[in-house]
Amino acid sequence: MSVTAPRGFRASGVPAGLKASGAPDVALVVNDGPAAAVAGVFTANRVKAAPVLWSQQVVRGGQVRAVVLNSGGANACTGAPGFQDTHATAEHLAAALTAVGPELGAGEVAVCSTGLIGERLPMDRLLPGVDAAVAALALDGGAAAARAIMTTDTRPKTTEVNAEGWTVGGIAKGAGMLAPALATMLCVLTTDAVAEPDALDEALRAACRVSFDRLDSDGCLSTNDTVLLLASGASGIAPGRAELTAAVTTACRDLARQLLSDAEGATKEIAIEVVGAADEDDAVEVGRAVARNNLVKTALFGNDPNWGRILAAVGTTRAAFDPDALDVAINGVWVCRAGGAAEDRAKVDLTGRDVDIRIDLHAGPATATIWTNDLSHAYVHENSAYSS
Amino acid sequence: MSVTAPRGFRASGVPAGLKASGAPDVALVVNDGPAAAVAGVFTANRVKAAPVLWSQQVVRGGQVRAVVLNSGGANACTGAPGFQDTHATAEHLAAALTAVGPELGAGEVAVCSTGLIGERLPMDRLLPGVDAAVAALALDGGAAAARAIMTTDTRPKTTEVNAEGWTVGGIAKGAGMLAPALATMLCVLTTDAVAEPDALDEALRAACRVSFDRLDSDGCLSTNDTVLLLASGASGIAPGRAELTAAVTTACRDLARQLLSDAEGATKEIAIEVVGAADEDDAVEVGRAVARNNLVKTALFGNDPNWGRILAAVGTTRAAFDPDALDVAINGVWVCRAGGAAEDRAKVDLTGRDVDIRIDLHAGPATATIWTNDLSHAYVHENSAYSS
Repeated sequence: MSVTAPRGFRASGVPAGLKASGAPDVALVVNDGPAAAVAGVFTANRVKAAPVLWSQQVVRGGQVRAVVLNSGGANACTGAPGFQDTHATAEHLAAALTAVGPELGAGEVAVCSTGLIGERLPMDRLLPGVDAAVAALALDGGAAAARAIMTTDTRPKTTEVNAEGWTVGGIAKGAGMLAPALATMLCVLTTDAVAEPDALDEALRAACRVSFDRLDSDGCLSTNDTVLLLASGASGIAPGRAELTAAVTTACRDLARQLLSDAEGATKEIAIEVVGAADEDDAVEVGRAVARNNLVKTALFGNDPNWGRILAAVGTTRAAFDPDALDVAINGVWVCRAGGAAEDRAKVDLTGRDVDIRIDLHAGPATATIWTNDLSHAYVHENSAYSS
Repeated sequence: MSVTAPRGFRASGVPAGLKASGAPDVALVVNDGPAAAVAGVFTANRVKAAPVLWSQQVVRGGQVRAVVLNSGGANACTGAPGFQDTHATAEHLAAALTAVGPELGAGEVAVCSTGLIGERLPMDRLLPGVDAAVAALALDGGAAAARAIMTTDTRPKTTEVNAEGWTVGGIAKGAGMLAPALATMLCVLTTDAVAEPDALDEALRAACRVSFDRLDSDGCLSTNDTVLLLASGASGIAPGRAELTAAVTTACRDLARQLLSDAEGATKEIAIEVVGAADEDDAVEVGRAVARNNLVKTALFGNDPNWGRILAAVGTTRAAFDPDALDVAINGVWVCRAGGAAEDRAKVDLTGRDVDIRIDLHAGPATATIWTNDLSHAYVHENSAYSS
């Protein structure tokens, strides 16, 4: 399962003492080849954590043989010393792997971190943790790696997609701060397909665009988001680009759905399907405006089919539509037609966890679905108590 | 006090049975002249309530002799029948005022509504309420009018600004859904200054830009926001444009501050002062991004000086800045310098209601302050229970 499902990969997850709880907090994913192709997608936030700045450079080189991930500290807003810590971690892992296998440079090591922003990592605990993680590397270590990258996640997220003789596997973490252009999330995908970096890049960007980028739990954009795709080529099979993209997309969608269902304090999983849009950008803009509207989100928490708040949210966008032509259905009941009240809102059953909102703009053929959560007491509680 | 402080105005507020509580819900402001100049600023939401569509037309005419306002129903997303209800209300008031005074047309009556979206107003109760409000008109009726427009407001909002022989008065309502380009708010300002509609328009737009438009309680933009400024000319004094703008701005700032302090469920009043911006637009964009960030807002609710979340919010903007040059102070303590940790966050005292966040972009001379609230359990509670 997970990142060790495809051939050519080992992984591990160990406790290094970064988390006060003593839970696992350092993970490794190692690509044993024969190939070491890589692609990456990183946060759009202009305030980027040190490991993001590092890994962007490494991925640009097109070769990654190992990824080290830590929870218990984001290493964001830590300046030049923080970047040196990331560099030292990559150097340390490269040396430790070289000592027990083929030679490896720090420039082939990606680094991911997650946790509180603004504090240095305790390197005296992290580096011994990296050594322990190297010693623990195993062909079935994917599950341990998935556990070691959890922060407020209540469960590990893993995926496996089997194609014709090759496989895509993945792990992810993230349970809040989900926003477009990636959630506060780390994700490592692996495949034993034979693929060049540019094919991986194309597949990964296409997959993220319709999975993680369509997730908007609370509109907040993290400093550390990273999605990596490593290809070992160990299957000997070189899929076509469409086939590769399809499998990576399936894996990303599966992980995105798991992130949504584990979002901090949420009681609802809400799909906002925008149809009849002039183009896909309009559909996404409308979906996001509704997904980010705190009045819509609190109404759904209160099981209130308040379609007026949905229309008010749609009205803040620049998408093409006529306000007098908007239709809205909530869980299949068309409570709003032509911009006004239609079916009785009392017919809407919001007692379940899944909520389906459908908005018809009547302006064209395009469609998009944005996923979000409600805004609950528990969300406020978890996020007001996270760092203090 | 309030709208009846300037000479030439009468007002009233009465219960008409629109609110289930039996509290006052219909208000009138009447301009007895000699002049009837008007200016208005309306919601930027493209889904506009019927009274907004109506009053926009009326204000375009440049003459308004009366404003009728109701709480207990927004008359938004009610289609053509809702617009007819607004028209009928204006006709009814014009006839009722004509019966007891100089002739008045519906085209000189502005209408404002606030309450739940998507339901028709009970005209059988509203129109008799208008008659009762006409009968109750008084030279000291401003306070009653301020009470009759309240929804979830816990207290009426009024203001009075005295200039050299002339006065500006005002009432406002709004206690949530505060967002740029107006909060869910209604505001009527009056003055006995002599001023043409274009001078009033210039003063009102300038005043709103630095008061109501800088308030961003929860990022949600209402369908009904309206700010009207009526001038009776009864003082006989024609102030200069700068003088008029200054007085109207003072009145708007006073009311905006009252809206902020009464925002639904808030425990904090937060001033986000952005300095060192390349231009004012950048300063406003950064301030809004921080004001709308649920992770910042929940952290402040939890008395947590989590400056990393502030930096992450700044990083989502397109404003000019270098991430490694950002400084952030919370209540006077510079917890972040040059994009990294500086003074000990434990020094920050967040136990009070007022919070001052100062962000220095080090990119230029411009500055702007955005006002917002925290995101609390009570906000979630009030907004999840509003209509059900």
